Amino acid sequence: MSSGRLDIIGLGPGPERWLTMETPAILALATDVIGYGPYLDRVRARAGQKRHASDNREELARAYNALDLAADGAHVAIVSGGDPGVFAMAAAVFEALETGEEKWREVEIAVHPGVSAMLAAAARLGAPLGHDFCAISLSDNLKPWSVIEQRLRAAAMGDFVMALYNPASKARPDLIHDCFALLRELKAAETIVGFARAVGRPDEKLTLTTLAAADPALADMSTLVLVGSHATRSFEARGRRWIYTPRGSGTR
Amino acid sequence: MSSGRLDIIGLGPGPERWLTMETPAILALATDVIGYGPYLDRVRARAGQKRHASDNREELARAYNALDLAADGAHVAIVSGGDPGVFAMAAAVFEALETGEEKWREVEIAVHPGVSAMLAAAARLGAPLGHDFCAISLSDNLKPWSVIEQRLRAAAMGDFVMALYNPASKARPDLIHDCFALLRELKAAETIVGFARAVGRPDEKLTLTTLAAADPALADMSTLVLVGSHATRSFEARGRRWIYTPRGSGTR
Repeated sequence: MSSGRLDIIGLGPGPERWLTMETPAILALATDVIGYGPYLDRVRARAGQKRHASDNREELARAYNALDLAADGAHVAIVSGGDPGVFAMAAAVFEALETGEEKWREVEIAVHPGVSAMLAAAARLGAPLGHDFCAISLSDNLKPWSVIEQRLRAAAMGDFVMALYNPASKARPDLIHDCFALLRELKAAETIVGFARAVGRPDEKLTLTTLAAADPALADMSTLVLVGSHATRSFEARGRRWIYTPRGSGTR
Repeated sequence: MSSGRLDIIGLGPGPERWLTMETPAILALATDVIGYGPYLDRVRARAGQKRHASDNREELARAYNALDLAADGAHVAIVSGGDPGVFAMAAAVFEALETGEEKWREVEIAVHPGVSAMLAAAARLGAPLGHDFCAISLSDNLKPWSVIEQRLRAAAMGDFVMALYNPASKARPDLIHDCFALLRELKAAETIVGFARAVGRPDEKLTLTTLAAADPALADMSTLVLVGSHATRSFEARGRRWIYTPRGSGTR
């Protein structure tokens, strides 16, 4: 049997309006769609198309499954929320491809970029990522606290705006509190902090505050946390608050 | 006259397939479209819609113009390449809004996220942004070398994957060479480096190399430079090379 193909797709933060234009056609061509259940639920069911839901923790297993199906001739779409390359399935697929079965290497592969949670959260809050920034995932169970600490220290030293992904950990509920305690040692009390929950979805909730006043408990599993640089500013217009980081901003 | 509205839009890296689904409808509703000429050229002309092209360096002036028109009742779309919040027009608009004329504050404003150059470049190269990363703009004439140096040192200390925007500067042609000289002091010779030029466009060019072998002269004004972390890997499948950063990767 000839090898099929694997399209690695990002569905954006939620609403269909933030899909890329190419996404519906790519999904329509797939014989098999694979993903974490809640993301798969966002893909319209099509007659004759097989759907493979899996648990969120089983990323490598999901990648193996996708490559196996594609190596047997299927046209597989594997879906992530946001962008597939940012803390999502693309890296798992390439890890599987590099280290796994020889026949998988014959599969034709394409990664299709999407709107990441960070970009959507920033848009809803203003323009906090208007100058140099970094993205740090707090979720990985394989990542020791020492690594997270090193990255937060480096990000503070460089005065980067920070986008903190996956701030709530079931395995380590104290983690986000530890992060904020460290950030409060490293950065000014008046540093702007934003919590962007379920961006673009009906239960969206945006909270703007300062590092001193921020309640880390606001960060659940659907929340992206933005921590400003020294230059990130806040102001009000038409009864709502916006934040932005000026393009020309230097550093401390 | 009642105030109009201002939609801040990102057109993605180039091809229409990477626009978000909502973008054509938002552009169609605008009475006025404003942007740097080459981005404006990507917007389909519509009868009765006014187009305002401006030079790339005049970001604040462009934001003033957009807010002026909207304050007078126009329905304005201001367009950037990539995502409007990443080194693009959204921050300029909010800076103008905070510091400018009182009447501008009555304008209804929305930022619409897009696919950033970094995400598209990463997708074409594999999944280099699969773990913690940062984005640094090298373009800003207001940014002294000391700030760029501080950010590159911090990014290296944190072992972040780096996306370097706007690496080629007419005013400072040596800048990218200085950056690579510094990175060679800070990071291992075999660190993976990718040059992604004109991603998604007919003249797209992807180059994968190492920090030791990289030729900084490859980075022109249409190039995004990706510099790996210690964990970023490279392998071949179906005759092409992919790079990725494993999700579980720690640091040095």
